[in-house]
Amino acid sequence: MTTVVLERTPADAPSSALRFYQFNTLMLETNGPRLWDSLMAMAEIGATANGGSSRLALTAEDAAGRALFVRWAEAEGLSVSRDAIGNLFARRAGQADGPPVVIGSHLDTQPKGGRFDGVLGVLAALEAVRTLNENNIQTRAPIEIANWTNEEGARFTPAMLGSSVFTGALALDDGLAREDTHGERIADSLQIIGEAGDTPLARPFDAYFEAHIEQGPVLEDNDKTIGVVTGGQAIRWLDVHLTGKAGHAGTTPMPVRRDAMFAAAEAMAAIEDHVAGVDGLLATIGECHVDHGSRNTIAADVAFTLDLRHPADAVVDAAIDRIRERLAERLPTRGVEHELSLHWRSPALPFDDTCVGHVRDAAKALGCAWQDIISGAGHDAFHLARHCPTAMVFIPCADGLSHHEAESIEPEHAKRAADVLVNAALARAGRV
Amino acid sequence: MTTVVLERTPADAPSSALRFYQFNTLMLETNGPRLWDSLMAMAEIGATANGGSSRLALTAEDAAGRALFVRWAEAEGLSVSRDAIGNLFARRAGQADGPPVVIGSHLDTQPKGGRFDGVLGVLAALEAVRTLNENNIQTRAPIEIANWTNEEGARFTPAMLGSSVFTGALALDDGLAREDTHGERIADSLQIIGEAGDTPLARPFDAYFEAHIEQGPVLEDNDKTIGVVTGGQAIRWLDVHLTGKAGHAGTTPMPVRRDAMFAAAEAMAAIEDHVAGVDGLLATIGECHVDHGSRNTIAADVAFTLDLRHPADAVVDAAIDRIRERLAERLPTRGVEHELSLHWRSPALPFDDTCVGHVRDAAKALGCAWQDIISGAGHDAFHLARHCPTAMVFIPCADGLSHHEAESIEPEHAKRAADVLVNAALARAGRV
Repeated sequence: MTTVVLERTPADAPSSALRFYQFNTLMLETNGPRLWDSLMAMAEIGATANGGSSRLALTAEDAAGRALFVRWAEAEGLSVSRDAIGNLFARRAGQADGPPVVIGSHLDTQPKGGRFDGVLGVLAALEAVRTLNENNIQTRAPIEIANWTNEEGARFTPAMLGSSVFTGALALDDGLAREDTHGERIADSLQIIGEAGDTPLARPFDAYFEAHIEQGPVLEDNDKTIGVVTGGQAIRWLDVHLTGKAGHAGTTPMPVRRDAMFAAAEAMAAIEDHVAGVDGLLATIGECHVDHGSRNTIAADVAFTLDLRHPADAVVDAAIDRIRERLAERLPTRGVEHELSLHWRSPALPFDDTCVGHVRDAAKALGCAWQDIISGAGHDAFHLARHCPTAMVFIPCADGLSHHEAESIEPEHAKRAADVLVNAALARAGRV
Repeated sequence: MTTVVLERTPADAPSSALRFYQFNTLMLETNGPRLWDSLMAMAEIGATANGGSSRLALTAEDAAGRALFVRWAEAEGLSVSRDAIGNLFARRAGQADGPPVVIGSHLDTQPKGGRFDGVLGVLAALEAVRTLNENNIQTRAPIEIANWTNEEGARFTPAMLGSSVFTGALALDDGLAREDTHGERIADSLQIIGEAGDTPLARPFDAYFEAHIEQGPVLEDNDKTIGVVTGGQAIRWLDVHLTGKAGHAGTTPMPVRRDAMFAAAEAMAAIEDHVAGVDGLLATIGECHVDHGSRNTIAADVAFTLDLRHPADAVVDAAIDRIRERLAERLPTRGVEHELSLHWRSPALPFDDTCVGHVRDAAKALGCAWQDIISGAGHDAFHLARHCPTAMVFIPCADGLSHHEAESIEPEHAKRAADVLVNAALARAGRV
């Protein structure tokens, strides 16, 4: 789709602009360099030696990141508030004082995280508001930028903690009591950095839009700029525990061994073999541990994790059944007991058709190369989707890499995320 | 083989005795209950809640165990001395003042060790000397009991440290500088407990005999009381390191993944498959670790250990070559790099034919059910075997279990270990 720009702004004017696209659609464009400058400025807070950022939730670095964001928000005339779990909101008044259209993501990072995971969503939202201000656009509904507490789950579990508490998926008391590995509770951390407030939890939102890097290679491989996220896939976290018998590596004949490690290897191979036969099914064994492991002792206790995902709940549940059967067929002949237990279940979650439509319409009208996509990762948007009509917009990240200092995106893609976000939010909030 | 006891001692006499066995062989029998009482008394030092012992090398518990042994040895009129690495010797004079026949093992244990691993060898040696004393038997060569420092390697690495330093396999300075996990050096520990002495290292021994539990199930499965150890098997410790690429568990399509964990599982399966086809070859993968492992991240760095053993060096070296070929065939198609490196190589080590003959002759003459056996585990005897003619005697342990609080042996088998030991040592030292 070719864009037809009918109205150019002069060089000294703000480079965000209202422009006519084909079919006479009036579309907003954000200021790409300004967004990029903000991303780079935020990345300096907790900057790591290898070009990433380290702003664990509710640490001094996170506090500094939040303070910078608040300065920027207040410079745009936004009203900043916080709720009891430290979620941060910056409100742009609407014509009506009803439920806001909320746009945002998170500023916290992994211990050696990248510059864009989460941050893009908050600063694209800021750029959206800057663009609305600059172009003197008033909306019917208020627009709020949200920064959700502890999305990464790297300091406190679970991930997406702030949005869980906001939406009621996690009780406030439970959330406040979560401790980091040093035993510091979230309640204490909030006290230390002064980020707890009294904005009501679970107050109504008109809609929620979140821009985020894809954290996968699909858009890049397909040469697309925008992913219109239609929902989240079904996720199951399983634990596999194998119990054999310890013994001396040098004295126990192979036929009498009950080796839990070789049993684990066979179990993993069986899982991989099954998964390879099911289109779109993803399986990840990210952790494997030999309890009391020793080089010259037969492994008696081996545990590994299994992460299974697919757009359809039925497919992933059937996979678990089949994996269970395969392990039951194979492992008993080894004299190794096994247990496959479900640690966490997240059902497939479709986003709101109307909100997804706003995102798709914006991408189309702006002439972006776009495609529909399922989110493989978890996002605050999935909690919000149970609270209000929700949608997301993805942009590519180089090699699909995230949770890594080398996380990388194109400035032009970041701008496009903000472009889609501001137009989708404007369509929802209503121009007056 | 039936034993024919020609000479009974009266009930109030010491129950160790010189007895005539068939073929008119005059054999010593030790005092089983006395040996057992000593084993149980030693087990009280560092006793664990679950019936084991915890006497890490050169700790207060080890010092207390050594002190008890010294009291017992001095009560038998033995001269106690120590060398610079804390190896402890208790000497019974011979007719000649030449190199001693040394019998012993180690009193240190694993953190949650059993009551017999090592301890049996020292206290069977003590019981052998008690029996010689009680029966007024004089020997040509002196007989010494040895307690080797830090055999287990649980506090300081490497294992068998004391015998390594004594025999010159490890330099004294290097040994003294080894640190525990708290940074305490062996030199400091020796100072604290006063267990360093000036008995020369590497002084000549006439021979070395060590009694030990088998630490495997072979004798028990074959219903044998005595294992005549003909030597140690070839041991190779290898490290396998697989390097794939991290990625998000929910967003990376299976075909583009470079998953190091599934690659590791395939490598392990290939190893197991190869080993199953080679008689007597033992393979153990005792440790497996995912670096920066996370449940929802594709494993990029997986390392596992591989312990390979066989009585013949050629077989185990050929196995390494074949495993290397198999990994090279399979793993590159996964986009996963691998490295197979040799961490430690211990060649197959046959014991001295004459000394092994003394052990076998004693077992035969005493009418024990016996068999030749290869030692799968490492022992101080392997260092000594490079220093002087050496042999070992094994007895069964329940279920082959060792390095465990539940380690268990039969009192009758412990006595038989001491019986074989005293007669083999006597045959070597010469009765005068």
